[in-house]
Amino acid sequence: MQDRIIEGSVDLFDKKGFSKTSIQDIVDSIGVSKGTFYYYFNSKQELLRDIHLNYIQNLLDNQMIYMNDSTLSNREKLQKMGYLIISGIRKSGKSARVFNREVRHLEEEHIKQVHAIRREFRMNVQRIIEAGIKNGEFRSDLRSDIVTFGILGMVNRTYSWYDPDGEVKEEELVDIFIEMLVNGLKG
Amino acid sequence: MQDRIIEGSVDLFDKKGFSKTSIQDIVDSIGVSKGTFYYYFNSKQELLRDIHLNYIQNLLDNQMIYMNDSTLSNREKLQKMGYLIISGIRKSGKSARVFNREVRHLEEEHIKQVHAIRREFRMNVQRIIEAGIKNGEFRSDLRSDIVTFGILGMVNRTYSWYDPDGEVKEEELVDIFIEMLVNGLKG
Repeated sequence: MQDRIIEGSVDLFDKKGFSKTSIQDIVDSIGVSKGTFYYYFNSKQELLRDIHLNYIQNLLDNQMIYMNDSTLSNREKLQKMGYLIISGIRKSGKSARVFNREVRHLEEEHIKQVHAIRREFRMNVQRIIEAGIKNGEFRSDLRSDIVTFGILGMVNRTYSWYDPDGEVKEEELVDIFIEMLVNGLKG
Repeated sequence: MQDRIIEGSVDLFDKKGFSKTSIQDIVDSIGVSKGTFYYYFNSKQELLRDIHLNYIQNLLDNQMIYMNDSTLSNREKLQKMGYLIISGIRKSGKSARVFNREVRHLEEEHIKQVHAIRREFRMNVQRIIEAGIKNGEFRSDLRSDIVTFGILGMVNRTYSWYDPDGEVKEEELVDIFIEMLVNGLKG
């Protein structure tokens, strides 16, 4: 039920905007009572926070699966990270878009919660870069923090232009990105 | 005056959101009359469109200056493109943020206008990549369209995390990005 409320509200927030969507609109659209809504969420703000928190906590949980897998190279870890985000676009692209657009409606404390998880995900990517520098997979003369922001920008921005049902499959897209990032356009 | 209206309204749209900001709020904040507003803009929607149209048309005009400069390598053209966008963050970062958040308030026709200019800018970057493939500067085995989206994602996303007054100067940031993109993390 929680998932149905989230899904229905993401659709409405996307179409009408967060401010113009009421809790009544949300419960009407999925055919439940207001009581059901308040059983799962204390407010519309809390729902907006949970939409994003669910999404990024899930990314973080999945990231942890491969972070400490010593059979993978750091390039392979970057590849898995990219695939994790890009394969989530089909299911969660709309919720990422809604969140980014409406984040100003969240209270300071909620924004902090979201930022803390995002930061953890980013720091894990930076750890991959630094481990790669240490073991000689990657060069040491580029700042790992900026490199990390750059890679995440490339991957995260994908939701704004990429059509998972188009000509290029998710795996191929990730392959092109990682090959360009690791071996460069010069090859 | 047009610039003052744009600047004042970007501040308000950023703080209160587009829907909750009235034309009265805008003219009050900069101390002019509604008549002055309507001399420059027919509506709040048109103002929102112009905020972004000014910004990207300006990028496109600046892009054209170096596109046909045959003394520059394609790597140098990418570098100039990156610097163009990243050095604009200080001045126009807020307007980019406001636009991306509020774009759904624009009418279909206005969105098309914006997309046409964005597309032109992107196609110019793709031309740089393809010219580089043709003259042997860049490898030929990566799809130029995906490479272009990747590079632009990396560069465009910068406005969401980069502080131009922080430790890393704009030139250094662009250098790291272009060096990583051209020669790769492996170096």
